[in-house]
Amino acid sequence: MSSDADDDNGDPRDARDLFKWLSREVRDLSCARAVPRVDGSGGVDALAFLRDHVARNSPCVISNAIDHWPALTRWKDPSYLADVMGDAVVSVNVTPNGRGDALLDTDGWRVFVAPEERRETFRDFLRELNDDSRRRGDDSHPPVVRYISKQCGSLLDEFPALTRDCERELEWATAAFGAPPDAVNLWCGDDRAVTTFHKDHYENVYCVVTGTKTFALLPPCDGARLKPREAPAATFEDAPRNRFALRLERPARSVAWSSVDVDDLARDGYPPPLLVDVHAGEILYLPALWHHRVSQRRGKDGEPCAAVNFWHDMAFDDRHACARFLDEARARFEVATDPTETSSD
Amino acid sequence: MSSDADDDNGDPRDARDLFKWLSREVRDLSCARAVPRVDGSGGVDALAFLRDHVARNSPCVISNAIDHWPALTRWKDPSYLADVMGDAVVSVNVTPNGRGDALLDTDGWRVFVAPEERRETFRDFLRELNDDSRRRGDDSHPPVVRYISKQCGSLLDEFPALTRDCERELEWATAAFGAPPDAVNLWCGDDRAVTTFHKDHYENVYCVVTGTKTFALLPPCDGARLKPREAPAATFEDAPRNRFALRLERPARSVAWSSVDVDDLARDGYPPPLLVDVHAGEILYLPALWHHRVSQRRGKDGEPCAAVNFWHDMAFDDRHACARFLDEARARFEVATDPTETSSD
Repeated sequence: MSSDADDDNGDPRDARDLFKWLSREVRDLSCARAVPRVDGSGGVDALAFLRDHVARNSPCVISNAIDHWPALTRWKDPSYLADVMGDAVVSVNVTPNGRGDALLDTDGWRVFVAPEERRETFRDFLRELNDDSRRRGDDSHPPVVRYISKQCGSLLDEFPALTRDCERELEWATAAFGAPPDAVNLWCGDDRAVTTFHKDHYENVYCVVTGTKTFALLPPCDGARLKPREAPAATFEDAPRNRFALRLERPARSVAWSSVDVDDLARDGYPPPLLVDVHAGEILYLPALWHHRVSQRRGKDGEPCAAVNFWHDMAFDDRHACARFLDEARARFEVATDPTETSSD
Repeated sequence: MSSDADDDNGDPRDARDLFKWLSREVRDLSCARAVPRVDGSGGVDALAFLRDHVARNSPCVISNAIDHWPALTRWKDPSYLADVMGDAVVSVNVTPNGRGDALLDTDGWRVFVAPEERRETFRDFLRELNDDSRRRGDDSHPPVVRYISKQCGSLLDEFPALTRDCERELEWATAAFGAPPDAVNLWCGDDRAVTTFHKDHYENVYCVVTGTKTFALLPPCDGARLKPREAPAATFEDAPRNRFALRLERPARSVAWSSVDVDDLARDGYPPPLLVDVHAGEILYLPALWHHRVSQRRGKDGEPCAAVNFWHDMAFDDRHACARFLDEARARFEVATDPTETSSD
């Protein structure tokens, strides 16, 4: 594998742009062409998962490992969810543009803006999400994008009735990471909600229950490609008739966030992001510190996309240190590389 | 752990010498003070070993995991070894100075020199090793240093009779690495033989049977600290009365090898090498690509130091790419850092 990769990417000593060499080499060694799919029917072997994916810092999709979850069939039926969860008041992230946590250029200012968090019954959330006319909006009520994406343990905190349909932990993941999940979260939304590029300090085991999630992935060494920019933090704020206002955080806080999206990354001469569709019943293992952008599609019967993810504490090891080194090194030393270098060195 | 390390080493954005920051951070995250000792009595759990050490790229010493090897008692007795292996002809690496595979400055030339490989009976090897007068030498026969250190599977190739006293593979290591060892080697020598700093593209499970081995360890990110220098390859060659000659390889071959030793590394402002004594009955897990220097001592009854090591194929993953990047980056970019920077930034 190494020698093949060397043939492709040349010798680091000869690479005019060493950062590009690294990006290509890591891509080839982690996931040359596509995220591999692993069959989990019959159970996932914790040791093989740890050895072949976690230890190698390499994502994978695991199929058929949650086939026994009643959620896979039940959650396709909106009336089931409304019956079970309807009166519960839950946290819903609301934005005018579907981009929760993103840089926003507005009136000559750039801010980092987080969604408004509304509290509403799950029944109201589902009605808004599934009502075509509400989704289109009108002059008096412009459309808003709703997304259940509160983190830090939302499944157990806000949706305890749904835990009967899934699991509170995956035994093989707990064995591989050495501890039960630090947080289990529920995600529910439609095609308009997008999570922009970011990384988490967690090992992520992401189970899609209905619909399809599309992940765009970049390894930790590619952090500088995302061109993080500092901006003051703000929050979308409800104003009459869904005309959002921006509220700057007080006291002021500065956030560094990616200023590029998938299309930009296809043109920067590095390997483009790995794209992977994770379908209902599949699991993405997303290693800690991998950068990811997430979009979603409804299921074929129009059901919203719903998912449950398990966040396990990551090991703060040499990979963590190297990722921080590389982000800083590229900003500091990249000028030393030849700016005339093309995408084929 | 991360925040503690941050407190110690500061923020990478503020580090005047980013390479030094990385070296300190990796040291703190891998093995802050000393290589940890793990109790292996009752068996080593493959999953825990993989999770806590292999995946984290962190060495450890495992105690009490080979207590059942008859070798631990039998090999202390030289007459036992002479009886079992005496007539077998084996490969012995011979040098005038005890340094197999090392740079040698001689008559204004620098060469990379490998030991002479002699073929002799194991009985002769032991007699030479244990005879005080032979070890001292005299004017007509200067002393030479003998070391059984042939690699690539020497235990099974040359010492099959000794496999009754140990194991041909360690089940837990085979499970953790996903395959049986690629090579199992026997090592036997005394205090005069030293293996200079180098790295291996293997996961190394190193079992000391008699005597004590001292390893000096540096993580992969510290490769450039070893100041590798290119030199033409040569071999020590037997000449009458143990006065070695040097034979340059033909066709000429250039080798890059460390030009510094432990003492130099204590003065370069980076964390000094981790030193660990591995005693009879203990195992060192030495992760792939870690740089190491190895010396040894006889046991308390004067028996030579003997060891069996298991080399398992490494995963060529992002760590491999990062180590190559860092070696090259330091050579290329270090001039951009402030040369006046002191050891305490």
